[in-house]
Amino acid sequence: MKKVAVDAMGGDFAPLEIVLGGIQAVRDYKIPIVLVGDSEQIRKILADNGEDANSLIEVIHASQVIEMGEHPGMAFRKKKDASISVAARLVKQGKCDAVVAPGSTGAAVTAGLLGIGRIKGIERPAIVTPIPNEKGGHTFLIDAGASANPKPENLLQNALLGYNYAKYVRHIKEPRVGLLNIGSESTKGSALMTETYELLSKQTWFPFAGNAEGRDIPTGEFDVVVSDGFTGNVVLKFGEGLGKLFITLLKDSIYRGGVLAKLGGLLLKPALKKYMMKKFDYAEEGGAPLLGIDGTLIISHGSSRAKAIRNAIRLANQVAEEEIPTLVKNTLNVAIESE
Amino acid sequence: MKKVAVDAMGGDFAPLEIVLGGIQAVRDYKIPIVLVGDSEQIRKILADNGEDANSLIEVIHASQVIEMGEHPGMAFRKKKDASISVAARLVKQGKCDAVVAPGSTGAAVTAGLLGIGRIKGIERPAIVTPIPNEKGGHTFLIDAGASANPKPENLLQNALLGYNYAKYVRHIKEPRVGLLNIGSESTKGSALMTETYELLSKQTWFPFAGNAEGRDIPTGEFDVVVSDGFTGNVVLKFGEGLGKLFITLLKDSIYRGGVLAKLGGLLLKPALKKYMMKKFDYAEEGGAPLLGIDGTLIISHGSSRAKAIRNAIRLANQVAEEEIPTLVKNTLNVAIESE
Repeated sequence: MKKVAVDAMGGDFAPLEIVLGGIQAVRDYKIPIVLVGDSEQIRKILADNGEDANSLIEVIHASQVIEMGEHPGMAFRKKKDASISVAARLVKQGKCDAVVAPGSTGAAVTAGLLGIGRIKGIERPAIVTPIPNEKGGHTFLIDAGASANPKPENLLQNALLGYNYAKYVRHIKEPRVGLLNIGSESTKGSALMTETYELLSKQTWFPFAGNAEGRDIPTGEFDVVVSDGFTGNVVLKFGEGLGKLFITLLKDSIYRGGVLAKLGGLLLKPALKKYMMKKFDYAEEGGAPLLGIDGTLIISHGSSRAKAIRNAIRLANQVAEEEIPTLVKNTLNVAIESE
Repeated sequence: MKKVAVDAMGGDFAPLEIVLGGIQAVRDYKIPIVLVGDSEQIRKILADNGEDANSLIEVIHASQVIEMGEHPGMAFRKKKDASISVAARLVKQGKCDAVVAPGSTGAAVTAGLLGIGRIKGIERPAIVTPIPNEKGGHTFLIDAGASANPKPENLLQNALLGYNYAKYVRHIKEPRVGLLNIGSESTKGSALMTETYELLSKQTWFPFAGNAEGRDIPTGEFDVVVSDGFTGNVVLKFGEGLGKLFITLLKDSIYRGGVLAKLGGLLLKPALKKYMMKKFDYAEEGGAPLLGIDGTLIISHGSSRAKAIRNAIRLANQVAEEEIPTLVKNTLNVAIESE
């Protein structure tokens, strides 16, 4: 098991839900954790739950917090003792193997970039997010918002990161990597995309499966879909909103459809939960890894509760096990030597 | 009623489904139509359906067709007698008020741009597409793919077009216009978006409601969401794919959930159709207007069948009634005078 530092002060329900999630991860998976934040509050929650003497739980005090509204870069530089900064430093110093960062995505990306540092050869980190697909698995969208104005080289690097993630962490045998664009032909789309298409076609690190359109993300025809962070972020949030709309309309159909529809809804509910809702429940995954940094960092939603945090810690352990940074460094070295 | 030219050769099911859709529009709404394409085939379908002598149906022969795989601009210039070119010319010459163009979006945009022509002051046309929202209405996304590399000025013009469409064609009282971006602050996103934000804040044609995030599209907080054509196209197609996935998972829940779930599904089916499926049925709307051209053109899906075409003709009539080009010209003139 890897040791996971958790920013216990991040997100809307910190520290209570974060600490409870940490306790669940320790109990369910025996993953050792370090809770970083206001030690007095954290210790009280641990004591209330009978976990004040668990040898798998450490507490490290941090006196500051980066708030949602703050400029991430400035706040990170100023608040040396912010919980997220201290957690990132634990990874940088080799005292922990991974960080779970709930709350501000900007603060988490900055902590990864400045606190842990980039992999040599990767210019910008990228967020990889799973989207459920028709084949029963997930399509991994990279980048979901770390870098809004990338260059073709950055997208090539995203593709390499996503490929390694799909293959080694998610155990997809031969991941199909596609480029998110507005048509299947190589000449389609913006200048950024046609140039990236060329780079992806020329590289020899992994097979390139061509352009993916928006509708291809949920089909599962591609395992990894490479995107600029702007489009990726819009797509991800749009999917979130559309998911909510579907649920609303489903409920509407049940409540407005009369007695028979209500009965139908009641009978269908357990199956809906099992086969549908679970797939769209963010907490099942718990967070999205920031790839391209020289360590493991999982970004969790600001609205994360205990279950999401438990699963984010589980994911952090999984990602750290596979040592993506080493895999990527090896690929990049090979590429440099063969040139 | 306005007179609508229909490219009877466009799309996967042409000419049969297109002609049948035309017949339905004439029967249901008394909209006069001109069917453009292979007159022999068209007349045969009309005769088979007892409509060879309907005074509201005209047939104009066109000997060529622009195929899905062709380069739209080159095909349009070369094939002077293509059905879509002839249909666009009918509007240019004032013989028809609108075109319905099923099939290749590229060919339809080219026909609008070169065959009908731009509104003076509008550099690039834009496609406006309705997305169902939580408030029971639609959010209008503009541009859904006509222009993949716009400048800030183009997005400002899209906003004006979308505002007029929402207000005058869709009768939304005071449309809220938002800019699709990756955060709500004015400084968020790409250079394109921050510059556009500034332009939108300074103009006085309509109130600007600020940045919209992906998740705001389905909430209905904005009536018009302005986007570059790249992101808009990805979002639209992603929504299509995600809709299919939801339906798949819903069916999975019914079929895999045992006898009770099956019974529940049966009881719920009529309400689902009425309150949910209908909202996501593309054919209900039938097509998406290309705005910014000096006339009316509705782009329909290549997979359109009769019902979609009937509704696209109804929409064409509606859009043509409101004379958006005149509204836009008036706004642009006012703006120029006041400078």
